[in-house]
Amino acid sequence: MYESYWQKKGDETTVVIPGWQFMSYFSDATRLCWFLEPEFAEQIVRLHNVVGNAVTENRHIVVGTGSTQLFQAALYALSPCAEAEPISVVSAAPYYSSYPLITDCLKSRLYKWAGDARSFSKNGPYIELVTSPNNPDGFARRSVVNGSEGILIHDLAYYWPQYTPISSPANYDLMLFTVSKSTGHAGMRIGWALVKDEDVARKMTKYIEINTIGVSKDSQVRAAKVLKVISDNSEGPNEGDSFFEFSYRVMAKRWKQLREAVQQSGLFSVSDFPPQLCMFLNRVFEPQPAFAWIKCEGDIDNCESFLRGKKILTRGGKHFGVSPKYVRISMLDRDKNYETFVRRLSTIRS
Amino acid sequence: MYESYWQKKGDETTVVIPGWQFMSYFSDATRLCWFLEPEFAEQIVRLHNVVGNAVTENRHIVVGTGSTQLFQAALYALSPCAEAEPISVVSAAPYYSSYPLITDCLKSRLYKWAGDARSFSKNGPYIELVTSPNNPDGFARRSVVNGSEGILIHDLAYYWPQYTPISSPANYDLMLFTVSKSTGHAGMRIGWALVKDEDVARKMTKYIEINTIGVSKDSQVRAAKVLKVISDNSEGPNEGDSFFEFSYRVMAKRWKQLREAVQQSGLFSVSDFPPQLCMFLNRVFEPQPAFAWIKCEGDIDNCESFLRGKKILTRGGKHFGVSPKYVRISMLDRDKNYETFVRRLSTIRS
Repeated sequence: MYESYWQKKGDETTVVIPGWQFMSYFSDATRLCWFLEPEFAEQIVRLHNVVGNAVTENRHIVVGTGSTQLFQAALYALSPCAEAEPISVVSAAPYYSSYPLITDCLKSRLYKWAGDARSFSKNGPYIELVTSPNNPDGFARRSVVNGSEGILIHDLAYYWPQYTPISSPANYDLMLFTVSKSTGHAGMRIGWALVKDEDVARKMTKYIEINTIGVSKDSQVRAAKVLKVISDNSEGPNEGDSFFEFSYRVMAKRWKQLREAVQQSGLFSVSDFPPQLCMFLNRVFEPQPAFAWIKCEGDIDNCESFLRGKKILTRGGKHFGVSPKYVRISMLDRDKNYETFVRRLSTIRS
Repeated sequence: MYESYWQKKGDETTVVIPGWQFMSYFSDATRLCWFLEPEFAEQIVRLHNVVGNAVTENRHIVVGTGSTQLFQAALYALSPCAEAEPISVVSAAPYYSSYPLITDCLKSRLYKWAGDARSFSKNGPYIELVTSPNNPDGFARRSVVNGSEGILIHDLAYYWPQYTPISSPANYDLMLFTVSKSTGHAGMRIGWALVKDEDVARKMTKYIEINTIGVSKDSQVRAAKVLKVISDNSEGPNEGDSFFEFSYRVMAKRWKQLREAVQQSGLFSVSDFPPQLCMFLNRVFEPQPAFAWIKCEGDIDNCESFLRGKKILTRGGKHFGVSPKYVRISMLDRDKNYETFVRRLSTIRS
């Protein structure tokens, strides 16, 4: 979906890397996160300030090979070392389907997946993942466990103005972001964490050192360039042509098409979202999430297999800890594929 | 050390990446390792064929964020799932100091570090790491555990002609390589595995999917370019100016300087290595490892702290599972730093 925007921008975001540059493991040995490229760090702070979606003051930046690696770095950093039992990791259902897989992948004695945060009632310390806007259902979220020893990780991958109104700068202890969802460059494998506590940031850096000895310099350099162009265009005279204006318009159009298709078919439902003022776009709008979270109404129990029969590939609710009556579909596919999807959906009858 | 070569090569290894390219998670969805760039895969096979250091026929290539990530992917893939007890991971001392740290980082129930392979005698399955030439001591190695249920991982990061004579193509089940040691581009964070068993390759790919959802496309594209230039120059009319001729000469010079400094001082010793014919360089020479593995002779018990007092920073033997009378020093530093090191070493007297 974002490809056509970057094509239109032409050479503005092209990077040129000579063979003798960025050869070292180190980016800046004096920094806490010694493998973070200074120019990338600068552009992260600038973009958050331009968009107003996160507080960067008094935060350490840790770069990761996507926010997936940063999530694991956070689990490593936040797990109590001396505990006999692994710390419980929870998130309110429906939750991002990769969280349980990642958490339990190596059967760690440090932490373990403990499922839906809403039904979690164990005493003692726990880690709660708060994804806001949420993947898969798009709703804004706050922590739900009512414990005194909770440690929160805020996954803010979708807290950008093409998906949801930016009401105020997020101001949490540990916040995760990624270029794959903000700019569309999933292939770079670049994410970043804004971390308040120095010791936590240091341990996250340690994890990434042990896991991959840092993060691709080439992709950091390229990500810096892309972020810079986004900030430049958001502030400049061609503001109407900015990345977020473009992507906001595409998402608005797609959500309109989706709601029409759902209505035409009559077999499905999607949530309504309360409209809010976006301080960045200076406009009131309803959230238009990166995923459609669709419910099959009536007698259809397994929505995923029902839609597969109609040549629509989705991911079923059980992966997200809820009923198979729900499915998740990406709203970010290429134009042509998206058109095919809504056309097929609109023609499904019982 | 390699920087000056790549500077001399100028634009030959420069990459240009427009903003709209390599945006997807996928490189080639039809491939087992779906995030491996086809051009990089091609250049890996070509370089191994040119150098003759590894068999690539009937092998699956898995790309990783450095060989560090591939080592973890291999542990994940080779650990028996159903075992009650973690599988033991061993390597003959002195072993690469990061192996125990990586293996035990998350206190996995799948595998655990079990120390020096030479003193390992437990029955049942185990994983043995064979690093050849070895980090830290530079010797060629074979597996040492005499068990029937051993699974081997061959770390061949240093099996390149600037470090050791290439006697024959390595032909093992699971072989790890990395650009950081072959071409000097540590900042790319790119490694690759050559894997015989399809199921193992598939599980390694799965681990990298869960850990980082693939590997930076930008760095793969850049690595492909660098490998291509090395192959081109090794085969072309300017063979004398090839990367491996250059790096062989630098290493030969540095090892000559090191041996002179050790002799002048009289307080230290380094190993002699048997000369062998290198089929690639068509020349008989002694291995000239990427690290100097130095022993403090006489009364000095802690060589690391002794040398720190002489302003030489090293890593002590205990990190590698052996006596603190040994230290490891990189032989790949920039010219100026290397000159300083040998000058300081040569003037140390008891």
